[in-house]
Amino acid sequence: MVIVTIILDYTIGVVVVKACGLVVEYNPFHHGHYYHVHKTKQITNADCIIAVMSGSFLQRGEPAIIDKFHRTKAALEKGVDIVLELPYPYAVQSSTLFAKGAIYSLYEIGVSEICFGSESGNIADFIDSYNFLKKHQVKYDTNMYRFLNKGYSFPLASSKAFEIIGMKQVDMVQPNNILGFSYVKTILENRLPIKPRTIKRIKNHYHEKAITNKIASATSIRKELINNDWSQTVGQTLPKSSVQQLKKYKSITNQWHTWESYFPYLHYRVISMSTEELAQIHGVDEGLENRIKKTAIKAKSFQHWMEQIKTKRYTEIRLQRMFTHILTNTTKKEMEPFLNMQSVPYLRLIGMSETGQAYLNHYKKEIQLPLISSLKNKFRSLLYTDEKAMNVYYSILPSEQREKLRKQEFQLPIIL
Amino acid sequence: MVIVTIILDYTIGVVVVKACGLVVEYNPFHHGHYYHVHKTKQITNADCIIAVMSGSFLQRGEPAIIDKFHRTKAALEKGVDIVLELPYPYAVQSSTLFAKGAIYSLYEIGVSEICFGSESGNIADFIDSYNFLKKHQVKYDTNMYRFLNKGYSFPLASSKAFEIIGMKQVDMVQPNNILGFSYVKTILENRLPIKPRTIKRIKNHYHEKAITNKIASATSIRKELINNDWSQTVGQTLPKSSVQQLKKYKSITNQWHTWESYFPYLHYRVISMSTEELAQIHGVDEGLENRIKKTAIKAKSFQHWMEQIKTKRYTEIRLQRMFTHILTNTTKKEMEPFLNMQSVPYLRLIGMSETGQAYLNHYKKEIQLPLISSLKNKFRSLLYTDEKAMNVYYSILPSEQREKLRKQEFQLPIIL
Repeated sequence: MVIVTIILDYTIGVVVVKACGLVVEYNPFHHGHYYHVHKTKQITNADCIIAVMSGSFLQRGEPAIIDKFHRTKAALEKGVDIVLELPYPYAVQSSTLFAKGAIYSLYEIGVSEICFGSESGNIADFIDSYNFLKKHQVKYDTNMYRFLNKGYSFPLASSKAFEIIGMKQVDMVQPNNILGFSYVKTILENRLPIKPRTIKRIKNHYHEKAITNKIASATSIRKELINNDWSQTVGQTLPKSSVQQLKKYKSITNQWHTWESYFPYLHYRVISMSTEELAQIHGVDEGLENRIKKTAIKAKSFQHWMEQIKTKRYTEIRLQRMFTHILTNTTKKEMEPFLNMQSVPYLRLIGMSETGQAYLNHYKKEIQLPLISSLKNKFRSLLYTDEKAMNVYYSILPSEQREKLRKQEFQLPIIL
Repeated sequence: MVIVTIILDYTIGVVVVKACGLVVEYNPFHHGHYYHVHKTKQITNADCIIAVMSGSFLQRGEPAIIDKFHRTKAALEKGVDIVLELPYPYAVQSSTLFAKGAIYSLYEIGVSEICFGSESGNIADFIDSYNFLKKHQVKYDTNMYRFLNKGYSFPLASSKAFEIIGMKQVDMVQPNNILGFSYVKTILENRLPIKPRTIKRIKNHYHEKAITNKIASATSIRKELINNDWSQTVGQTLPKSSVQQLKKYKSITNQWHTWESYFPYLHYRVISMSTEELAQIHGVDEGLENRIKKTAIKAKSFQHWMEQIKTKRYTEIRLQRMFTHILTNTTKKEMEPFLNMQSVPYLRLIGMSETGQAYLNHYKKEIQLPLISSLKNKFRSLLYTDEKAMNVYYSILPSEQREKLRKQEFQLPIIL
């Protein structure tokens, strides 16, 4: 779960409209997400909640269990007013780029505050951490470099470097804290007119695998859905709107999207690529192409492949992201413009409530970027990478279902 | 069915060994093929029959119904003594390159005569045709160019140009005649020390779709196998050795290899490639990349895709070859060395009889090229494209079967 809230004071005529943005994945939308929306409204008095959500593939480098449209519907029914899709080139990335894409998307749509879920719920910790790191940046970088050279993974090297400089304010091992810190860093470093805030997460840990509570982790919910489909346990962790959308999607596709369902394609692609071609894919660095080719041929499943390929240096998440880029054929060349851009190139609108629609009607003329509401739009070519990822996402389905679901991209945004 | 016989007189000590080569696909090995082997031995008095056979993918741009090893075993049991694999870069090509790869492979292994199946069975027709064409080459080329510019397909433009120059000796509409003519042309044009011969084909046409006789076309046999599996009709068209190998292969894989089984991979690959990337694939010419992309997204099956994409200009066979190169990711760059080479780069030995083994033991030292008998061989990197095609060929199978069948590539050649 990735949550951020961004709040904007924007004067429409004489009325001040408070619009709040959330950085989310909703994979799937559960009670914890609803709590976040609800709490955000409560502490900010926001009139309009704007979420920027990963689309077909997610930050940890995996397919979303159901598509973005059905996840969007579930969220709109539980109080979110606008859902923007975080473009693929930012969505399937480590925290820095992910945060850049998300924060700038919300910035461009006009918000002025953020608030994300964290273990402590204390925003001062994050701001202090940022200032503390800035002061000790050289020492941090030196140690980071040293640990990476020792063969440590990026997250481990980073948390060890934080330990050495004596960062105590935020536990930089928790994924949510790392993301929250990246949001704060993006805002402060770029002097964005956004005030960061955080709310305390409740009752579950990001990686928790079993459902122990009505507020369960998305990981445990997905596990339950994939293994046992609709057990009673899983039902109680989800708002009715989410259950409806999950069931609706499953009735069309007759399957959940998991890495295992894409394994034959990933495997086929790798065995038919040269190492030189693999090295052109975003995320295939440091000679990893040889390791990928070597382990591919005997891979029996995605899980089995992962076990063969992972090392101390490359975490499963890092490799999952790389595999996602191979699956979607996302090249280094294709990523370049996104990496070199100050902001994001466009906003992709997936759905909105009446409140969201009213907000957009008023604020639209202030938006500097193309606001793309359908692939029919004249800016379609900007979304080349997103459209490709979407086509790959649906490619595991029979042609009839594939066509039906793809059509959503060419329709007007969902309006609740 | 592609059949050629090449005969060599080679003195081993004081014994003259007659070695004959056949250009074949054996998809699958049927009574017509046996007749060809038998008749070849009869008219040539050959001691040793050498076949050069397409491997995983065939001249018409389709997967072989079962793998090359099982087809080889069937052939060895019916009188073929050596089976060489025609390298993929020659196998999946129009007649000129196909003939170049096949004839040079047999030339390099030392043969001195060829004899292929044709409608007339009269070799003088082919030699006369070659000389006739040489005399009218300019007129032929001019008309060929004119018809191609009119939007005619290559085969149609070619047969019309032949008509205009008044070529009467050989009917250049029959696929077998076109191939035979290409063999003769390759030999005469390059002054290879090989005497071409032909035998008259019996009782079936290349494209015949229904089984009407014990000697049936491979097309009709495949159709029967795919639709009705082991009907009584199909059994009578195949030698026992072929039935055994087909049954053995099917018991491992539980399926026949058809284009439809590769359709999900082909479709997935195309939707995740840019038009620029597609244009780098061998066979994707003249802006076809746009037509491929345009028709891909709605394709329901391979057959359905083919119906959408084919035009007057592009025959199904031409497009099937192109699709094979996309499926196997065979790039223009990768093909370059093969196109620019005078001969072939290596000989790949798949299997042999005791006679074949004896022949090779004696003749081996005369062979100028690497004779590769296993992928374990130090020349493995030469076979990059073949290995890739083989991996793609098996990629539709579950990992256990895939591994089992792949292993054959790393073992010693089959010895009967």
